[in-house]
Amino acid sequence: MRSALVIGTGLIGTSAALALTARGVTVHLADHDPEQARTAAALGAGTDVAPEARVDLCIVAVPPAHVAATLADALRKGVARAYLDVASVKGGPRRELEELGLDLTAYLGSHPMSGRERSGPLAATGDLFEGRPWVLTPTRDTETEVLNLALELVALCRAVPVVMDADAHDRAVALVSHMPHLVSSMVAARLEHAEETAVRLCGQGIRDVTRIAASDPRMWIDILSANPGPVADLLAAVAGDLDETVRALRGLQSADEDKRREGAAGVADVLRRGNAGQVRVPGKHGTAPTAYEVVAVLISDQPGELARIFADAGAAGVNVEDVRIEHATGQQAGFVQLMVQPAAAPKLAAALRERGWALRQQ
Amino acid sequence: MRSALVIGTGLIGTSAALALTARGVTVHLADHDPEQARTAAALGAGTDVAPEARVDLCIVAVPPAHVAATLADALRKGVARAYLDVASVKGGPRRELEELGLDLTAYLGSHPMSGRERSGPLAATGDLFEGRPWVLTPTRDTETEVLNLALELVALCRAVPVVMDADAHDRAVALVSHMPHLVSSMVAARLEHAEETAVRLCGQGIRDVTRIAASDPRMWIDILSANPGPVADLLAAVAGDLDETVRALRGLQSADEDKRREGAAGVADVLRRGNAGQVRVPGKHGTAPTAYEVVAVLISDQPGELARIFADAGAAGVNVEDVRIEHATGQQAGFVQLMVQPAAAPKLAAALRERGWALRQQ
Repeated sequence: MRSALVIGTGLIGTSAALALTARGVTVHLADHDPEQARTAAALGAGTDVAPEARVDLCIVAVPPAHVAATLADALRKGVARAYLDVASVKGGPRRELEELGLDLTAYLGSHPMSGRERSGPLAATGDLFEGRPWVLTPTRDTETEVLNLALELVALCRAVPVVMDADAHDRAVALVSHMPHLVSSMVAARLEHAEETAVRLCGQGIRDVTRIAASDPRMWIDILSANPGPVADLLAAVAGDLDETVRALRGLQSADEDKRREGAAGVADVLRRGNAGQVRVPGKHGTAPTAYEVVAVLISDQPGELARIFADAGAAGVNVEDVRIEHATGQQAGFVQLMVQPAAAPKLAAALRERGWALRQQ
Repeated sequence: MRSALVIGTGLIGTSAALALTARGVTVHLADHDPEQARTAAALGAGTDVAPEARVDLCIVAVPPAHVAATLADALRKGVARAYLDVASVKGGPRRELEELGLDLTAYLGSHPMSGRERSGPLAATGDLFEGRPWVLTPTRDTETEVLNLALELVALCRAVPVVMDADAHDRAVALVSHMPHLVSSMVAARLEHAEETAVRLCGQGIRDVTRIAASDPRMWIDILSANPGPVADLLAAVAGDLDETVRALRGLQSADEDKRREGAAGVADVLRRGNAGQVRVPGKHGTAPTAYEVVAVLISDQPGELARIFADAGAAGVNVEDVRIEHATGQQAGFVQLMVQPAAAPKLAAALRERGWALRQQ
């Protein structure tokens, strides 16, 4: 790939342009707001001068509602050898394009899975896609050359390509992102009018469950509006489990022992299915979660405490795989959990004890 | 407090005994399984010889179903000046005791909020309660001396006392722990039979939401069986939100513009209420979450990388408040997010860049 045209210089478009420019591709930038394209150019993402000849790849990075019209316009003008969009939903835009009766052999739908809280060109960064999945949704009609140009884009952005059917993609993001987001909001919503003493008892569990409920509602209304069907289907399935679990808990309140036994079985069932689903969530580097050993070290809230721990762990030659800081209530001290390969845990614990750290017994 | 009797030498009982022994209290250990009490004694938690005189405090740390009978027996024998239990549910045991017609002026219900995955005396540790809330549920009849002995126990265990009504406690733990646990299981359960390509798209959001779904179902069936009413009430409220949200999403699929507008408003409502609830979750040290600035540093998966970063952050005199490692898919590199006070972020970023680290633009 030697040249590209990026239409829509928001977060995603500008980030892709920065990555391509950094790897020597000539990038042209366009936006319905020329000021926005100028800003992206000023950031080093490319030039806001229109290309004089056909480019290799046209990347359409406009909001979901404008994807079909923008792509149709670019396809009719024949500005590129290949065309790609990056909208977070894939089934609807494809059907809109098909209804326009266009030749779509040079078009490929795609979705880089790398949102962030901020938007616009100023939030863009050339490494936004590094290590993240970038879904490609080719059809039987997609030309091989087009797929290869898209794979080159993904490689230049250092993302990981994942090929999927458009509708399967939409169901997948409903499952791994949209449904969990709404459920997290619903758990958090229960805290809105809770008593202060109750809220004081929050621990790490509810903190994790509700973290994503802090996101900007405006952005999420757009996302959910583009994929309402699959999300509603999944929420309805969760609602089914929820109703069953309420019934099981009511059974546990019963004076009848059979009903209590049935209730316990119902609660056990949802907990066990939760176990079975949770182990499928990929851990670090996209693999199944490794069972790390935890070494918990007591630290005070003084600057440099974490630094000293990690220096000491490093001196012991141990690679810390993950870190979690336990939040203590009303105290200026807490535990930092160092997650390491099981074989390395005794070595790390011994090294830290020797250097005077207080460890929690495991 | 000079002497204590711990009945039930599992995780909680042995941990409290270890803390008291470490602070000079004479601790007697008892268990229906004498081998278990011997193990706790061998760990340094106290003596498994019965006390010759009345002790200051009797701590009943047996499974929820045995609390009332064990307490009644101890009260009748008059083994202590004050009596306390540590069961995770408080309303039921109190009512059982009241039905036995006992004088409860010397008894206080309590709940240290510090579970862990493992159980039994071998998992015990004297610092299990450090910085964690320890709920006390006195009534109007509780003698002041009894409350003060309990407060002394909490202080010696370095926990944070929180006084609550017994039923309010049960509703609070249903809200901040039991309900979120079941909902997390239900989200995870949706992944059980999901396609592998869909599961590959999991990001940090669903990873956080489903983390607690990995817990042992047996322990959770016991917990939920002791508190089914409040948990069922909360799940029913979540089910109400869920049904409304499914309706709102179906509205978004409608051809009718009014229905689509109504649907968007419904989705917006649950997202906004989620925002309002999420900000109430206490952050580090029990205070409202501070808006930390994130400095994201690119690291490879080599041993010592984290150590070097923290050493460099420490050398810059910056206190890292929290850490999150971003998991990259299929790559041997990723970002570590260092969360620091906003004022310290530019200093940290400059220091790390100077030492050769690649930072992500914020």
